[in-house]
Amino acid sequence: STRKLLVLPGDGIGPEVMREVAHIAGWLRHHRGLALDIDEDLVGGASLAVHGVPIRDAVIEKAKAADAVLFGSVGDPAWGHVGFDKRPEVAILKLRQALDLFANLRPAQVFDALAEASTLKPEIVRGLDIMIVRETVGGIYFGEPRGIETLPDGSRRGINTEVYTTAEIERVSRVAFDLARARSNRVCSVEKCNVMESGLLWREVVTDLHKREYPDVQLSHMLADNCAMQLVRDPRQFDVIVTGNLFGDLLSDLASMLTGSLGMLPSATLGAVQDDGRRAALYEPIHGSAPDIAGKGIANPLAQILSFAMLLRYSFDREDDAALIEKAVSNVLASGLRTADIMSDGMARVGTEMMGQAVLRE
Amino acid sequence: STRKLLVLPGDGIGPEVMREVAHIAGWLRHHRGLALDIDEDLVGGASLAVHGVPIRDAVIEKAKAADAVLFGSVGDPAWGHVGFDKRPEVAILKLRQALDLFANLRPAQVFDALAEASTLKPEIVRGLDIMIVRETVGGIYFGEPRGIETLPDGSRRGINTEVYTTAEIERVSRVAFDLARARSNRVCSVEKCNVMESGLLWREVVTDLHKREYPDVQLSHMLADNCAMQLVRDPRQFDVIVTGNLFGDLLSDLASMLTGSLGMLPSATLGAVQDDGRRAALYEPIHGSAPDIAGKGIANPLAQILSFAMLLRYSFDREDDAALIEKAVSNVLASGLRTADIMSDGMARVGTEMMGQAVLRE
Ligand SMILES: CC(C)[C@H](C(=O)O)[C@@H](O)C(=O)O
Ligand SMILES: CC(C)[C@H](C(=O)O)[C@@H](O)C(=O)O
Repeated sequence: STRKLLVLPGDGIGPEVMREVAHIAGWLRHHRGLALDIDEDLVGGASLAVHGVPIRDAVIEKAKAADAVLFGSVGDPAWGHVGFDKRPEVAILKLRQALDLFANLRPAQVFDALAEASTLKPEIVRGLDIMIVRETVGGIYFGEPRGIETLPDGSRRGINTEVYTTAEIERVSRVAFDLARARSNRVCSVEKCNVMESGLLWREVVTDLHKREYPDVQLSHMLADNCAMQLVRDPRQFDVIVTGNLFGDLLSDLASMLTGSLGMLPSATLGAVQDDGRRAALYEPIHGSAPDIAGKGIANPLAQILSFAMLLRYSFDREDDAALIEKAVSNVLASGLRTADIMSDGMARVGTEMMGQAVLRE
Repeated sequence: STRKLLVLPGDGIGPEVMREVAHIAGWLRHHRGLALDIDEDLVGGASLAVHGVPIRDAVIEKAKAADAVLFGSVGDPAWGHVGFDKRPEVAILKLRQALDLFANLRPAQVFDALAEASTLKPEIVRGLDIMIVRETVGGIYFGEPRGIETLPDGSRRGINTEVYTTAEIERVSRVAFDLARARSNRVCSVEKCNVMESGLLWREVVTDLHKREYPDVQLSHMLADNCAMQLVRDPRQFDVIVTGNLFGDLLSDLASMLTGSLGMLPSATLGAVQDDGRRAALYEPIHGSAPDIAGKGIANPLAQILSFAMLLRYSFDREDDAALIEKAVSNVLASGLRTADIMSDGMARVGTEMMGQAVLRE
């Protein structure tokens, strides 16, 4: 059956790396009967430039109607002064909320061919394979009250509110426990329960849920500051990490940088499984819009390509096509091709397009 | 003149490492005429065990009356279930608030003799010298409303509030700018202004202050998630980092772990300079109470010893004594003595007491 895919390249390097995905999708259509109904639209600064808003309601409706969304990245310093409600980042935040995409799955994996690319010693990161499950529609990103108020004396106060409910904590933890069962069966839940009541509730709810529904999974708890340290000290101690929106933002970026392969890492953000079996899902690379290298043709397209592979596997049930892409990527790396971000001695430096073409050839 | 020092060893390895400081203080009294009026008291789990509270009001009063506080560490899993208001950590949080200790200075420095101890490649961290200035009496640690409420259906909501005012942001930023002038003259201000209004205000206030009072200092801004990544990718790009309470907690722990010398790093937390020239100050190692190794006699006492050196320099104007201690520490390291945390091939492993004695001999 024909699948509806919404493609949202966004800002910075988003459009460049997405172009390489388009070639691969075209090839799969031609050679492997992939029936895709692709729509594409603007988000972020790209949408601001044309429509004056970071994302139109019509695009949100399209996303809801699609079987999956393939997202590039948003964020553009040129739009740094448009006001808080119009910043490019609103596009991804609104999509997460509107589609209730509450579980962001961020693998931090060291590719064998790239163990040397990490700034960490190879013996510390070799074989690293962490899955961070980050809550993405709650916490301080969306809590009310929020805003900046001016006080009588002219000075100002900035306010944000972190809120987590039992239900929000349970559903994202279930995703983590379920993933762990298919991996090394260990979950580490991360909060700051020694200073924040929202973290205390988090720890209690995860502990209860574990006892009730997942006693077979090994559960541990860690404070967020300690987790940041442990990720540097001995990252391989972790299997699945589950945490809130803000800690997840920092810790997942940290974890992916440990791998030395930031430009290689895909992510999936999932909603709840509906009664009809459908599940809203958005796929995007972990890296951002990287405005500093945008337009230069040197960005690594592999994270975007691997995000597409993940999409084929989880949302379109095309395991074979996903595996084919992943195999092609690993062959290309084995052949020694490298974009600038993962370059090392003795390898051949290529740009975005040549890397995309190489994957296609494979 | 006699200086009043309040010593609060706290929990876990706190008392063990503090004992080594006591020997050094005794030596300085005897041989270098250091006139100290030392008082010692209980905080954290140690205070809970005796007094039923993590810190008594009397101890807070003593801290206010002292010229400086030397703190060990608090936190003890044995007191994990005493309720949020009675957790050992309340001791340090109350001290920070009561003495208005708003600027926590956390150096992340790689000691030449220990460049190999980092999990990062030596060429990434050699010579690293970052100063993180973390706001410590505001933000989500103390904002109201906070707490856990039970909803009609029996489920619960955990709430915390992040608040920052113009005045709070300005005073901690001034500390950072002033420090930068005596270093490499660069400040990087870190927040999450693309999702949080409190971060947006933070960026605006720092930008204005810089323009008005510190145009000679090089100022940059970075999002907290990017900062976590950049600390791993290329930590030496930073000189002074200034940030809020929660981001500072994670980022400073991360930065200190990069150095591979967590057990070596002291910190100072400073209040405002009063009209009489006095300034409240608390000194503590960056490491925590490390309950897993407490009582084993293997903890590294150097961070506590170096915290005392910092205290002598900044609060007691005893630059010579401070330098003497620092020289002794570096001689001991050069001689090859290592506690377990900084152990490497070919070095001699020693425990807490032998390390302390070695510093004393030097
Ligand atoms: C673009 C930004 C709003 C977003 C976030 O903070 O969630 C990004 O950093 C991410 O991690 O997906
Ligand atoms: C003990 C704890 C409350 C404290 C904090 O979170 O501030 C500690 O982690 C620190 O960084 O000093």
